[in-house]
Amino acid sequence: MSEPDVRFARLRLIRSANVGPVSYMQLVARFGGAAAALDALPDLARRGGGRTPVIADERMVVREIAQVEKLGARYLFRDDADYPPLLDQLDNAPAALILRGDSALMARPCIAMVGARNASAAACRFARQLSQGLAGQGLTVVSGLARGIDTQAHIGAIDGGTAGVIASGIDIAFPPENAELQEAVANRGLLIAEQPPGTEPRARHFPYRNRIIAGLSLGTVVVEAAPKSGSLITARLAGEAGREVMAVPGSPLDPRAQGCNMLIREGATLVQSAADIIEMIRPIDARAVRSPSSSFGGAPPAADASDVERRNVAGLLGPVPVAVDELIRQSGHAPAAVQTVLLELELAGRLERHAGGRVSLA
Amino acid sequence: MSEPDVRFARLRLIRSANVGPVSYMQLVARFGGAAAALDALPDLARRGGGRTPVIADERMVVREIAQVEKLGARYLFRDDADYPPLLDQLDNAPAALILRGDSALMARPCIAMVGARNASAAACRFARQLSQGLAGQGLTVVSGLARGIDTQAHIGAIDGGTAGVIASGIDIAFPPENAELQEAVANRGLLIAEQPPGTEPRARHFPYRNRIIAGLSLGTVVVEAAPKSGSLITARLAGEAGREVMAVPGSPLDPRAQGCNMLIREGATLVQSAADIIEMIRPIDARAVRSPSSSFGGAPPAADASDVERRNVAGLLGPVPVAVDELIRQSGHAPAAVQTVLLELELAGRLERHAGGRVSLA
Repeated sequence: MSEPDVRFARLRLIRSANVGPVSYMQLVARFGGAAAALDALPDLARRGGGRTPVIADERMVVREIAQVEKLGARYLFRDDADYPPLLDQLDNAPAALILRGDSALMARPCIAMVGARNASAAACRFARQLSQGLAGQGLTVVSGLARGIDTQAHIGAIDGGTAGVIASGIDIAFPPENAELQEAVANRGLLIAEQPPGTEPRARHFPYRNRIIAGLSLGTVVVEAAPKSGSLITARLAGEAGREVMAVPGSPLDPRAQGCNMLIREGATLVQSAADIIEMIRPIDARAVRSPSSSFGGAPPAADASDVERRNVAGLLGPVPVAVDELIRQSGHAPAAVQTVLLELELAGRLERHAGGRVSLA
Repeated sequence: MSEPDVRFARLRLIRSANVGPVSYMQLVARFGGAAAALDALPDLARRGGGRTPVIADERMVVREIAQVEKLGARYLFRDDADYPPLLDQLDNAPAALILRGDSALMARPCIAMVGARNASAAACRFARQLSQGLAGQGLTVVSGLARGIDTQAHIGAIDGGTAGVIASGIDIAFPPENAELQEAVANRGLLIAEQPPGTEPRARHFPYRNRIIAGLSLGTVVVEAAPKSGSLITARLAGEAGREVMAVPGSPLDPRAQGCNMLIREGATLVQSAADIIEMIRPIDARAVRSPSSSFGGAPPAADASDVERRNVAGLLGPVPVAVDELIRQSGHAPAAVQTVLLELELAGRLERHAGGRVSLA
């Protein structure tokens, strides 16, 4: 198969219904490639209890590829050699990224900087200076192009090196007032999207975006964040991936410092300067970052499952997320068989995958 | 010997030249009591190379005792049963304290609260509320009656329970504007001094005062402190004694937060509320606090030393402080003999004891 055909098949598989980052990797591994996986898809979905054909429409995929080209963007598949190795360590790393700008910025040591959208003026200035200091030392500052701290992180690092990861398609700016900054990041830095062009950002896309920000980076720095904010989710994802979690402290009297102070109480490193951050990540080599210990990638679903196995595993599932390891233990079946049943259920739209290698009925 | 005679002998030994907290305990242990130790003192000092008689004048001691009584104060000797056990764990715990007020406050769980003399108004208010919250939960808030955070710590806990430890004699207020507060602490809380009445506070007295604040307490909380401040010394002493070190964070843009943020970076627990502090110390029982592992208390100087031992140990000493353990190892002599030589040298005014069980030539 020609290279364009391979990439077409990959994208078509990724855009097919119920194929997520985890099942994409499992399908490619099991069938030796995206084209063969596409052929097997209807059958697998049927075994999982799905009824309708699930493969993405060819014309839709052709249209998306043309649109990406027209936008001056390009695809980076997880199968590609230059896919960022740190991001690749996530079980649920994006199967494909859409990029605009200088992808060499992903090869530098990356630091995520995130924080409150409604940050104080002082914290905004501080974030901008911190970001400038980091970029000046040859690091890429990764953030999410949101209002507040994200915006300042990108502005501070725009000359030195910044990557913006967005929850929408690569052609959509959110918030709208950041359209100009997003264009600047694409032209002078690197703009990264996981969703196809034209996708409006929805609430469920933001945690996906956050996992890319944390996953690309050796560490995540939080500057001013409220408890229960998206920034803390990014920090949690960074911690789960074995990356450094850092936070800029604030007075207990400042409600906007509560999230950061809470993170520090829970073990995040208090940082006050670019030097503090560099001191934390300098000893870390990308290859030395510990892999997350979930069971997603553990056993590829190389074997067919029997009806007994299907029944038993499905019987153990419910609306409450449970670890795949736990399912394997409780069912007593081979890991590969359990993974196969889960893959079939997912493709049939009956399974949902959650953080930390847990699954539930959809 | 009658009880007053015993206490007179103890105080006379403590007030004798070159007798410090460590040598006091060693002398009492070796000679079975203060009176016998007093008898042995001139001889020991002579062996250490001292020339003049070193015993405190009897009339001076009588005068001090009368003055302490007149001030409504009393002595608490390290040998007394109700000496605070946590403080007693310090090798260099005061041989005698002079107290005014309710000494039962020392028997409650104590928390030290210290910080900047020039603290911000916001930090002062915060310290006062924090202290009030702690005292309201049955803890005694210990501080140093200095300006700023110390003052607020005492004010906040004046109804609930506070102990003030001062560097001067019990009858001297420093700073003078805190005279009224010091009187309130003595009347409604507990006032503690190590120096005899009439002693004006000198720079060298403050670290001694700080060790008592840290030593009485299960943990030390620092609220706003500059790097290299006395508050950080208290925190360091608390850490060396195996107690909890806690700090209230602040913005990196606030220079007065630098000391606290630095402490947190070095491992102190970030605290934002009385609940945070109580959570830290609740699991700690006074008896469970780990003893410092210095060699001060290790081998009491029960044996006489030979001239060879005297020469060898003295030969190993210089102006740079060295650990007693190291001296024992390098000299090859028995620990008790080395301790005896050091005691003799100290009584002769030729030895200085430093933090962490280290000694140098005076």
